[in-house]
Amino acid sequence: MNIRFYNARILTMAGDSLEDAPVFSGEVWVSGSRILYVGDGNVAPDFYEKHGLTAICFDREIDCHGNLLMPGFKNAHTHSAMTFLRSHADDMPLSDWLNEQVFPYEAKLQPEDIRTLTKLAVLEYLTSGITSIMEMYLTPETIAEACNETGMRCVQVGGCNNFSQSPELLEKWYNELNGKSELTSFQLGFHAEYTCTPELMGRIAALAHKYKAPVFTHCEETKAETDGCIARYGKTPIAYLADLGMFDYGGACYHVVWSNEDDRRIMKEKHIDAVTNPASNLKLASGITPIAEYLRCGIPVAIGTDGPASNNCLDMFREMFLVTALGKVETQDAAAVPAYEVLKMATRNGAHIMRIPDADCLAEGKLADMIMIDLSQPNMQPIHNIAANVVYAGSKSNICMTMIAGHILYDTLDGRQAFHIGEDPKDIYRDCEAVTRRIF
Amino acid sequence: MNIRFYNARILTMAGDSLEDAPVFSGEVWVSGSRILYVGDGNVAPDFYEKHGLTAICFDREIDCHGNLLMPGFKNAHTHSAMTFLRSHADDMPLSDWLNEQVFPYEAKLQPEDIRTLTKLAVLEYLTSGITSIMEMYLTPETIAEACNETGMRCVQVGGCNNFSQSPELLEKWYNELNGKSELTSFQLGFHAEYTCTPELMGRIAALAHKYKAPVFTHCEETKAETDGCIARYGKTPIAYLADLGMFDYGGACYHVVWSNEDDRRIMKEKHIDAVTNPASNLKLASGITPIAEYLRCGIPVAIGTDGPASNNCLDMFREMFLVTALGKVETQDAAAVPAYEVLKMATRNGAHIMRIPDADCLAEGKLADMIMIDLSQPNMQPIHNIAANVVYAGSKSNICMTMIAGHILYDTLDGRQAFHIGEDPKDIYRDCEAVTRRIF
Repeated sequence: MNIRFYNARILTMAGDSLEDAPVFSGEVWVSGSRILYVGDGNVAPDFYEKHGLTAICFDREIDCHGNLLMPGFKNAHTHSAMTFLRSHADDMPLSDWLNEQVFPYEAKLQPEDIRTLTKLAVLEYLTSGITSIMEMYLTPETIAEACNETGMRCVQVGGCNNFSQSPELLEKWYNELNGKSELTSFQLGFHAEYTCTPELMGRIAALAHKYKAPVFTHCEETKAETDGCIARYGKTPIAYLADLGMFDYGGACYHVVWSNEDDRRIMKEKHIDAVTNPASNLKLASGITPIAEYLRCGIPVAIGTDGPASNNCLDMFREMFLVTALGKVETQDAAAVPAYEVLKMATRNGAHIMRIPDADCLAEGKLADMIMIDLSQPNMQPIHNIAANVVYAGSKSNICMTMIAGHILYDTLDGRQAFHIGEDPKDIYRDCEAVTRRIF
Repeated sequence: MNIRFYNARILTMAGDSLEDAPVFSGEVWVSGSRILYVGDGNVAPDFYEKHGLTAICFDREIDCHGNLLMPGFKNAHTHSAMTFLRSHADDMPLSDWLNEQVFPYEAKLQPEDIRTLTKLAVLEYLTSGITSIMEMYLTPETIAEACNETGMRCVQVGGCNNFSQSPELLEKWYNELNGKSELTSFQLGFHAEYTCTPELMGRIAALAHKYKAPVFTHCEETKAETDGCIARYGKTPIAYLADLGMFDYGGACYHVVWSNEDDRRIMKEKHIDAVTNPASNLKLASGITPIAEYLRCGIPVAIGTDGPASNNCLDMFREMFLVTALGKVETQDAAAVPAYEVLKMATRNGAHIMRIPDADCLAEGKLADMIMIDLSQPNMQPIHNIAANVVYAGSKSNICMTMIAGHILYDTLDGRQAFHIGEDPKDIYRDCEAVTRRIF
């Protein structure tokens, strides 16, 4: 399908700064799952020839009415199916919450439940302009199916630990869940240092070496976890894992609230990127991540919502505001972590850390993972600086279209909210309520 | 006009805890500007007689489809017309921002500009379920007109300082802007200790004594301001102002990020309540307010967005999440500042601090300032705990109706966003753009 978006403002995110790639008025043409053209609409004389076309026939032409097109948000860390635990047990510290309110109920989940609960999260991602997720949960097969069925781009990572999954399963999924679908892929990963024996982590590191693959894990989320690792092994989690050879092919750590200077030196050297989850870290009282330090050290940072049980919602606008706002208050510097840096984290950096580099910006040949931001809402008026408006004033109510792989999966273009994922949201709600009733 | 809301879930906020006044299924009847009935729809035999009616004829009956009715949010501190500065100058500390990027441009504002810019903010308040605002800005007459014209409930406070307004004007407005409209009122106030001479503050305190009236002001927003007062007068701002007799009839302080134990003792004793503005305090790197301490001391806390120049949006959902999330991380206690306490701040406490006690909860005879929360959005599913869902997962996209004084001013009840404020939002946007273009 060929779709022409015209009369748009466009923020490509192709530049390192807003000055490198400022917002401009123009068009985006989408063909199949890719972007065919981004510009002012006056294509170069050799454009058609270059693309092996004589002309282009559009199946749909969308007047953007001056609204903003930009790359979709990358949610670089989540546990989607934990929707069933939303608002089930709040106001508890992480360890009690995990052991008393999460693990016992998760044990009752069936793979089919996880398919259903993941779809509920997909609906929410779409309303927040999220076009891809980095997912860690229990049953990768049904999660991949849920994402393929609804059209969500999903990079799964293993969540191996002493009680669930195994290096054998990781290897099986790594081989079976990659290359099968344009939308879904699988990367090596494990839950966390504190839930894995050294022997288990050694076997995961060996897999990373065998496949020359990056590894992803929760790391240094709480002070207790970090101190515990130091007590066990005489090293911080990052130093310990790096010494195991876990990150010899790079990877990323989720949370990394409690890193010290040595950790950041190792992260920079080993290409261990940081994924921050500010709402979850606040709500569980885990701490405030030193984002300004990661920026200073040149460590790429992406943003994740974490799962809906600890957040409790899947809203990249809230996370983006928190990243900049906490960065400012933590450093006592209102100039810290400026708006465009946050947008880079939420788009480009997320794409690179998730190993889907073609989703990083709007440009010819890139993936058509794109959102439209409604600038005719009062929170976007007047327009001084669109990038700042998105980060500081934006909300889910500004998302008027979410496109993944060239498919419009969500929109309010005719004034009414509409999901296009092949299922009625009400059916998904009903199924999720049934799962929830069975489990509690 | 009589309106019947049926098939609703209802959170009255009439209780000190959710157990005192749990969510129930039922109806709310509105007559004129007041609530006539809240219950299961089976009125008592003497109901009609008690209200001098033989029966009731509804002008409109609204099926709530199981969505939630609750009191509207009270935005207890804002500077609405600063919409013209939204995203104009971000990433700057408070003093530079105020002196270089705010005051010079504010000097160019005309009273009519402020009317227009205030209306833009009203549109945004309505999308966020805000049914009353406590406003401090430059031209109270045109602000009152903007609110009366659009239907927004507004309690203004004086913003007197060495450069603008005066005790004479405060007294004039106190007499002229009270009692004229059901929607708008005026309270004594001044900008802040650091922008007023002792002589000026003494005259404002004398007015408070003359009218036995509460006083409202910015106080202890930054460490520099607090330290400056100690250097000038040997006392914290709260101690200094209390010693001037400023709060002999109570009042409230905005921000109060840097209070110490003595300050909180004085606040409790003098009925000086706290209004917290977390997004603004983070963005300007002012600090994190010790909300858990205010709760422990029994000091009522309400929530404000602050102005859109320092926030940069007017969204009570963002503020509510920040109040609980920052309360948890600041105390390293995930149980601190639980969801229902935050809802009380955003509704009941706001109403009491703003001196509009009839807007505090849903009950017979109370003001019909009410909102409907759309529970059929994915971020509200499944439903374990509605109060927690609103605080932890809610967003502006969940507001499907905002009613003030019995008038539905905003709704998405037929699936499309509609404002009912007597003006087209596009005209307001156009006028605000014109003001902005003239000033910059």
